[in-house]
Amino acid sequence: MTNSCKVHSPATIANLVCGFDILGMALHEPFDIMELVLLDEPKIIIRNKDNFNLPTDPEKNVAGVVLLSIMERMGNRIGFELEMEKHIKPGSGIGSSAASAAGAAVAANHLLGNIFSDHELVQFAMNGEKLASGVKHADNISPCILGGISLIRSIHPLDIVSITVPDLFVTVIHPQIEIKTSYARQILRQQVSLKDAIRQWGNIAGLVAGLLQNDPDLIGRSMEDVIIEPVRSILIPGFDELKIKTKEAGALGGGISGSGPSIFMLSKEKQTAIGVESVMKEVYDKIGIDYRTYVTTINKKGVEVIA
Amino acid sequence: MTNSCKVHSPATIANLVCGFDILGMALHEPFDIMELVLLDEPKIIIRNKDNFNLPTDPEKNVAGVVLLSIMERMGNRIGFELEMEKHIKPGSGIGSSAASAAGAAVAANHLLGNIFSDHELVQFAMNGEKLASGVKHADNISPCILGGISLIRSIHPLDIVSITVPDLFVTVIHPQIEIKTSYARQILRQQVSLKDAIRQWGNIAGLVAGLLQNDPDLIGRSMEDVIIEPVRSILIPGFDELKIKTKEAGALGGGISGSGPSIFMLSKEKQTAIGVESVMKEVYDKIGIDYRTYVTTINKKGVEVIA
Repeated sequence: MTNSCKVHSPATIANLVCGFDILGMALHEPFDIMELVLLDEPKIIIRNKDNFNLPTDPEKNVAGVVLLSIMERMGNRIGFELEMEKHIKPGSGIGSSAASAAGAAVAANHLLGNIFSDHELVQFAMNGEKLASGVKHADNISPCILGGISLIRSIHPLDIVSITVPDLFVTVIHPQIEIKTSYARQILRQQVSLKDAIRQWGNIAGLVAGLLQNDPDLIGRSMEDVIIEPVRSILIPGFDELKIKTKEAGALGGGISGSGPSIFMLSKEKQTAIGVESVMKEVYDKIGIDYRTYVTTINKKGVEVIA
Repeated sequence: MTNSCKVHSPATIANLVCGFDILGMALHEPFDIMELVLLDEPKIIIRNKDNFNLPTDPEKNVAGVVLLSIMERMGNRIGFELEMEKHIKPGSGIGSSAASAAGAAVAANHLLGNIFSDHELVQFAMNGEKLASGVKHADNISPCILGGISLIRSIHPLDIVSITVPDLFVTVIHPQIEIKTSYARQILRQQVSLKDAIRQWGNIAGLVAGLLQNDPDLIGRSMEDVIIEPVRSILIPGFDELKIKTKEAGALGGGISGSGPSIFMLSKEKQTAIGVESVMKEVYDKIGIDYRTYVTTINKKGVEVIA
């Protein structure tokens, strides 16, 4: 049993357009780097090596509350010292809080001799999501820990299904505007028409079938959201134009990542994904909003212990 | 090109519990027997060899309107003579009208030298569903023609996805009570809560994943319907008791077939499916409602030309 380790904890895309609150996918980039040391006394020390000025009080830190819950489970016999180097900007909509929470859970488990199951790690890490957004959701946490694409069939009881992942390229743009997850949740209508719900579950079934049957075109045409996207996309300038133009550039489909503002598009070929990136940049250059882009692939491993 | 043929057109189970209006599955039993003769003049003659007293006026007959639409597409140069021997009782909820419509379409296509695609056959056959229920739905028609399980991702445009089918046993009970499809549709709430919709699409995603990953337990626990079943099951005496007791007897899961009154349950083993049948019989013997039961398997072929 070593007493320190380093992990890479990846960005994730929740919802995958039509799968609101039930689907999530891990990316290779960007990722956070976290170093965790096991202490023999019950305290949590957090140090930031980035410029995001996140709280270092463990009760107010996403990774901190996860480590506290693990410390408590261990009968308060141990503690942790954490050094955070976040590269996933908080509020980007690509699972920044999930990366902190999942990375802390996996690193702690590694130092404790892998005594917890993946299922338990997801449960621990959900405490971080609860702190970040007020809701214990697993659609970023689960793919962050397990890699690939996770289906959260049910939260109570927690039922996670790993979906076999085809080799696709992902282009992500993070326009530098702020959308609070809580606000993005609050503006959703709490009632939906049965007609729209049926259309949505046809698409979800199509997406899952497309992923498992490795049918990129079916994946693309199933990435249609008639319930959440029409409301949330209003908060993201240039959204409609970007979606139309990236599809013209060959993207299969895509949409808002999590609650935004990041937008992702899937492509079959790397060259297409790079072309999609150019189109995304053009749209936001014209609007005059700063951005960050990534061209990456689906991460099948999830949080990785690298040292 | 022969000028007469005989087909077996199978019963189908629409919805598969959580997949309202988007999923359907073909069965080996029961099935209708239809004999079709190609005529060289534009007329449709229908004869019934069963005791259901269905209309023989082609405009008022489910198979008749399908044959009329094909006759019209052929420029009214040909006609058909149909002999119907229905074994799937109209109003049973196991796709009686779909069997008539799909069987007529496939038989006609066979006599015409298979000039129409499966997609076109589904379109022709949907005219029969329109006559039967007022709605052009494909969730019985499509599996009846294609076999196995069909996902109707979208009706406009028609997008049908065949889902690979695991080897499972199906027990069906048809309590001899009448539920009009139109009434079963009318009593549904037209608005659903976002919370219920999310739970439902988690189950649909789980069901599709379970089918494609051949995970019977996932199939079973995904067969939960929080939107349609709570309303429609009120129309079926004994429904809740039957569901609980058949699960105790080892069934994976199941529920209302189409809009009812038939109920189906899936099992991994034939012996379990037979035990489930006994339990179903006990429930309805106690209530004192007549019934018909079937223990069968998933039909991977759909309508079959047998002569």
